[in-house]
Amino acid sequence: MSFTFKDRISISIFGSSHGSSVGCILDGIPAGFKVDENVVNLWMTRRAPGQSSLTTQRKETDNVEFISGINNSYTDGGPITMLIRNKDVIERHYDELRERPRPGHGDLSLFLKYGPFRNYSGGGFLSGRMTAPLVAAGSIAIQLLAEKDIQISSYLQSMGDIRIKEDRFYDDLEVYGTKSRIPDSVSDDKADELIRHLQSQGDSTGGIVKTVVKNVPAGIGEPFFDSVESVISHLMFSVPGVKGIEFGDGFQLGRMNGSTSNDLFRMKDEKVKALSNHNGGILGGITYGNDIEFRTVFKPTSSIRKEQETVDIKNWNNTTVRVQGRHDPCIAIRAVPVVKCVTALSLLDLYLRRQSSYKGNFVNESSYGKDEWN
Amino acid sequence: MSFTFKDRISISIFGSSHGSSVGCILDGIPAGFKVDENVVNLWMTRRAPGQSSLTTQRKETDNVEFISGINNSYTDGGPITMLIRNKDVIERHYDELRERPRPGHGDLSLFLKYGPFRNYSGGGFLSGRMTAPLVAAGSIAIQLLAEKDIQISSYLQSMGDIRIKEDRFYDDLEVYGTKSRIPDSVSDDKADELIRHLQSQGDSTGGIVKTVVKNVPAGIGEPFFDSVESVISHLMFSVPGVKGIEFGDGFQLGRMNGSTSNDLFRMKDEKVKALSNHNGGILGGITYGNDIEFRTVFKPTSSIRKEQETVDIKNWNNTTVRVQGRHDPCIAIRAVPVVKCVTALSLLDLYLRRQSSYKGNFVNESSYGKDEWN
Amino acid sequence: MSFTFKDRISISIFGSSHGSSVGCILDGIPAGFKVDENVVNLWMTRRAPGQSSLTTQRKETDNVEFISGINNSYTDGGPITMLIRNKDVIERHYDELRERPRPGHGDLSLFLKYGPFRNYSGGGFLSGRMTAPLVAAGSIAIQLLAEKDIQISSYLQSMGDIRIKEDRFYDDLEVYGTKSRIPDSVSDDKADELIRHLQSQGDSTGGIVKTVVKNVPAGIGEPFFDSVESVISHLMFSVPGVKGIEFGDGFQLGRMNGSTSNDLFRMKDEKVKALSNHNGGILGGITYGNDIEFRTVFKPTSSIRKEQETVDIKNWNNTTVRVQGRHDPCIAIRAVPVVKCVTALSLLDLYLRRQSSYKGNFVNESSYGKDEWN
Amino acid sequence: MSFTFKDRISISIFGSSHGSSVGCILDGIPAGFKVDENVVNLWMTRRAPGQSSLTTQRKETDNVEFISGINNSYTDGGPITMLIRNKDVIERHYDELRERPRPGHGDLSLFLKYGPFRNYSGGGFLSGRMTAPLVAAGSIAIQLLAEKDIQISSYLQSMGDIRIKEDRFYDDLEVYGTKSRIPDSVSDDKADELIRHLQSQGDSTGGIVKTVVKNVPAGIGEPFFDSVESVISHLMFSVPGVKGIEFGDGFQLGRMNGSTSNDLFRMKDEKVKALSNHNGGILGGITYGNDIEFRTVFKPTSSIRKEQETVDIKNWNNTTVRVQGRHDPCIAIRAVPVVKCVTALSLLDLYLRRQSSYKGNFVNESSYGKDEWN
Repeated sequence: MSFTFKDRISISIFGSSHGSSVGCILDGIPAGFKVDENVVNLWMTRRAPGQSSLTTQRKETDNVEFISGINNSYTDGGPITMLIRNKDVIERHYDELRERPRPGHGDLSLFLKYGPFRNYSGGGFLSGRMTAPLVAAGSIAIQLLAEKDIQISSYLQSMGDIRIKEDRFYDDLEVYGTKSRIPDSVSDDKADELIRHLQSQGDSTGGIVKTVVKNVPAGIGEPFFDSVESVISHLMFSVPGVKGIEFGDGFQLGRMNGSTSNDLFRMKDEKVKALSNHNGGILGGITYGNDIEFRTVFKPTSSIRKEQETVDIKNWNNTTVRVQGRHDPCIAIRAVPVVKCVTALSLLDLYLRRQSSYKGNFVNESSYGKDEWN
Repeated sequence: MSFTFKDRISISIFGSSHGSSVGCILDGIPAGFKVDENVVNLWMTRRAPGQSSLTTQRKETDNVEFISGINNSYTDGGPITMLIRNKDVIERHYDELRERPRPGHGDLSLFLKYGPFRNYSGGGFLSGRMTAPLVAAGSIAIQLLAEKDIQISSYLQSMGDIRIKEDRFYDDLEVYGTKSRIPDSVSDDKADELIRHLQSQGDSTGGIVKTVVKNVPAGIGEPFFDSVESVISHLMFSVPGVKGIEFGDGFQLGRMNGSTSNDLFRMKDEKVKALSNHNGGILGGITYGNDIEFRTVFKPTSSIRKEQETVDIKNWNNTTVRVQGRHDPCIAIRAVPVVKCVTALSLLDLYLRRQSSYKGNFVNESSYGKDEWN
Repeated sequence: MSFTFKDRISISIFGSSHGSSVGCILDGIPAGFKVDENVVNLWMTRRAPGQSSLTTQRKETDNVEFISGINNSYTDGGPITMLIRNKDVIERHYDELRERPRPGHGDLSLFLKYGPFRNYSGGGFLSGRMTAPLVAAGSIAIQLLAEKDIQISSYLQSMGDIRIKEDRFYDDLEVYGTKSRIPDSVSDDKADELIRHLQSQGDSTGGIVKTVVKNVPAGIGEPFFDSVESVISHLMFSVPGVKGIEFGDGFQLGRMNGSTSNDLFRMKDEKVKALSNHNGGILGGITYGNDIEFRTVFKPTSSIRKEQETVDIKNWNNTTVRVQGRHDPCIAIRAVPVVKCVTALSLLDLYLRRQSSYKGNFVNESSYGKDEWN
Repeated sequence: MSFTFKDRISISIFGSSHGSSVGCILDGIPAGFKVDENVVNLWMTRRAPGQSSLTTQRKETDNVEFISGINNSYTDGGPITMLIRNKDVIERHYDELRERPRPGHGDLSLFLKYGPFRNYSGGGFLSGRMTAPLVAAGSIAIQLLAEKDIQISSYLQSMGDIRIKEDRFYDDLEVYGTKSRIPDSVSDDKADELIRHLQSQGDSTGGIVKTVVKNVPAGIGEPFFDSVESVISHLMFSVPGVKGIEFGDGFQLGRMNGSTSNDLFRMKDEKVKALSNHNGGILGGITYGNDIEFRTVFKPTSSIRKEQETVDIKNWNNTTVRVQGRHDPCIAIRAVPVVKCVTALSLLDLYLRRQSSYKGNFVNESSYGKDEWN
């Protein structure tokens, strides 16, 4: 608990990396939306291992079994349940980890919290495998937001010391045409080289995912406790490996002055726009028409082949561990579609909450335009 | 909506900066706890303006009126309601802002979301004034956590380019004995100088608050969606001005290798400890006995005296604005106690959730010690 | 806990019968609604004691202090906070009850749950006084629903063996023009006589409140767990004294056959209607256009002047108690406006949830009419 | 929405009667509890059709597939996911119902709420089939409560005009050894006869389920909004066919006097007990040590073979319908285990909430005994 996030939509995920399957329930989706099952499976593939030369070779086709909520490609208003069978599970590698928690991983936390009854194989329910159902749910949110023309771009901005040349909105095709999800061929090649080097060393590296959302309507975000930042960060920090998030200029704002960090408003095509975006499109926790921008940092994969110091939690003495098995040298690569999907789920939830806005649900959606208030 | 955060505890805040009062309800607190009302008022004073030479001169004594939930200094199991009357409200300064949203502030968002019916004076319910009831509630959480010896230290780590010499757990007396909440006399003096300079310029600066929590029991934090990071960040991003949060080494982890970022486990005094703390005391979203460490960035105060470009939302054309009124040149200073209080509320909520742990509520609290599992 | 009900709207109540005040926060109300404060106070008066010759003579004017959320009679999208000061509190009567829990009352439960720290005076937070803030909140919901022409009639259907002649939708004027809230002059006179008799005996009686809601749109109610019946009953059973609720023919349905209890559908004015209403306007937990009808039973006032057996919880032996103080001989009379207000809050919450309906919030509200599906 | 009930535990159900499967997620269960999968399947069998000569002959073995949350028969602290494949689905019977909503059933509501995209076969997600996952989840709650010796008895108290001789706590063996779940052989035979008669007529009847819970600890139930009655009724009204619930003497209390309806307290074996139980063991929404008692009414099965008037929602004119397919003449029979399971889920949730009690989770569970407060 809690494997359920519940507000306007609810998302429940279940399963574990070495059980029979993982899956999710996405509830609160209106009836009558067209859902393209192929798009769901496309995103499953983008998240799946073995899709790029740089990720783990564990093979999983990850086909989604649609259990309920979608009939003839349309939502029926009930909970959308999706099941993804686990295949190619090799338990063996994990037996030796049972008593020697991996440094940097949740093994020890799980043991201290759940005791001997913990689900420990392959990280149990703390495994990155749990992002598969999150992507299944998120890929439906992506489709719904697209009906309102809300578009999300997530890409790898940096890996180790390699950093993308330019930050902007990249199309999915640009992002997924690369090896590393850094949509810039020079950096992409450097990333390829770095990964191969780390593989040879049995080591790993961290990375930062940048997200840009365009066509965000004004008025999304609920004060006080459910600001856009609150909801996105809540869901994002549930993704394994995330250790920080910053909106707009984020931590740089700690060193800036108000006279330079304030985004100045100007009229543009009859609408108010801020030409700079130091605040990441969010003021007072609420959107006002600028793009949402934020960065999410993923720590280096904790499971590495190098020998590391740890403790034996059976005999309670010092020992070492050397993690076998297939692990991505940089989880941030495969996290790119996860971040996009989690962003979509967060925004869908917030979008559906606009009730406390001006007469909200009670009247037809108003355009909040220039004319209306005069 | 939503001015209520509800899980194990619920926190509802209300009011606005220029209304008659602000206040909060804190529900879910067990009966029988001793609450020292003086401690509540001490924290109100620490947050209040005019407490340091560096903060706004708006005077508010901010005495808390206890409406319900506490009888003879003991909690009675019902909702704890606290009311704080606003005094010294000068509406005048805000009249001119009605049609000219301040850059960097939520004025425009509020207008676009709530239309002409928005609560706009002084930022309405997006004002920093709303942190007063948050501190009232948090100061009770601080007292409850202290019964379990959980101690929180929040202090200003940096302001503009000034950075504290050393990061460690600072006592409240060390922090609140300073002018700037940077507990290091050299930096404190520099901060004093910077603030005076900014005041003369009508400008402002950002800052970063560091938090260290010691004596955290293992097993706090709920996978999947309610990790320690998820809950703390959710509440923290509701505080006006916060634009980023990072746990442990945070964004630095994006450039590190697994072999250096993994915190190695060692036995120490019969307990498992990690000697480094790159992960901020949280693995898999769950605590394991190390200190929780995180950093929160506050943007520069958006309300500055310098003239800035903005739009006129009555006539919909470009104009400028110059913000009058008393504003802190660095909101991060007064945010220090707010961060501590919000951390306390987050941890109290998570502490009370340990139900899904090993037999949780059903049996007496176990020590999760070495002996037990053998 | 939990003094907060939170779904689409959230309602938090606080205070106790013998503290300084009671109050509530109603959150989630869209900005821009006109709220007539006089209507709020009208409902406060209808609930207040001393309004009918048949109710307790404890005098409370119960004027509502509006703390936040309403500006110039319009909602601003923030939490609506209302405070009602307690007056005329006589503590003395309750001192003797401290150690002798009243039979039929929550005194003993409170003690067993909260121990010596319980809030015990006058029933503490289990007192009927807590319905005052519920009525304040509900009277706003009544006004919002009226904008959609949803009208609620609650009246006393029976008291003891006295039963109203005819069940139908009664206007508030018809109901509140009576002494007993039974809108039928013969029964009203009988009720008057019964109450005087009970007063002379130091005894009390129960009663049943009937509610009819007209102009309910089809499609209200959320399967599976948030059916119309689920939400109404959840909130209704929080009202002190309620011990049962039944929709449509309720318990009579246990003795009926399907061929007589099924409400047959017929076309009428281009719309589908059921001519009978055995199911109380709800099928599958969802409305379909018929009136909602239900009955709520209130037990006799437990605080009576007659001597009754009880225990002494200080010395733990058998004793007796004789309740002093002013108590209504039939709480169902004053419960009539409470039931109406709670119904309004329930329906407002459900009304705002229609998101999972056909394309819900995403498109303009459709009329679900005959034309649309063909 | 909402197919998830979430408080201390969360229960999400999914699927529909004519889809591939139904299932549920039960989250919030502590790690380390032994769960007997055979007990789960035993309850599935007790709910399944074809178990008594009096219920529908639709055959479903309803074996539960355990997807996650239980390892080697012990809970692991993660979500317990259970899948039940649908078999023996005959779509044909429902085709003709597509345009002719069955009177008394949710067909029309579903159409008006979800439009042409509704899940309509066999009642879609409003079908009684959805009680199968509810029973799966509830059968685990039953096992957990049994560890605290909390025992629930649900049985059929009446069917049509047949009523059980005596109300008391009946063991499951007594209840499930009957044909009708009325544990009294004379009534059981009469019920058998009634069902056969109704089958021959193509008609149905209603029934009332009585529930008695013994060994309930004092202090269960949370004022204000989450009284024992509120939580039980919320979940109970989600069960298809329930139209009323009453606690203790329920609607009879409307005709009683306080002097007879108050349950008098007496010391008995050093504990406080009430010898009568007019209030069903709940005062002020909180238990105090007496048995919980309540009655739930189920309406007659709405799907009957007799020809009934309805409308054609394609051509919008009057027509008739005659429901084919296999339907129980009295759903109350098969509802008996459902009521028990829903009661168990409600009580488990409430049991885990006792945090606001005297020092709640913070100290070891205290006995609330006589000695403690002196």
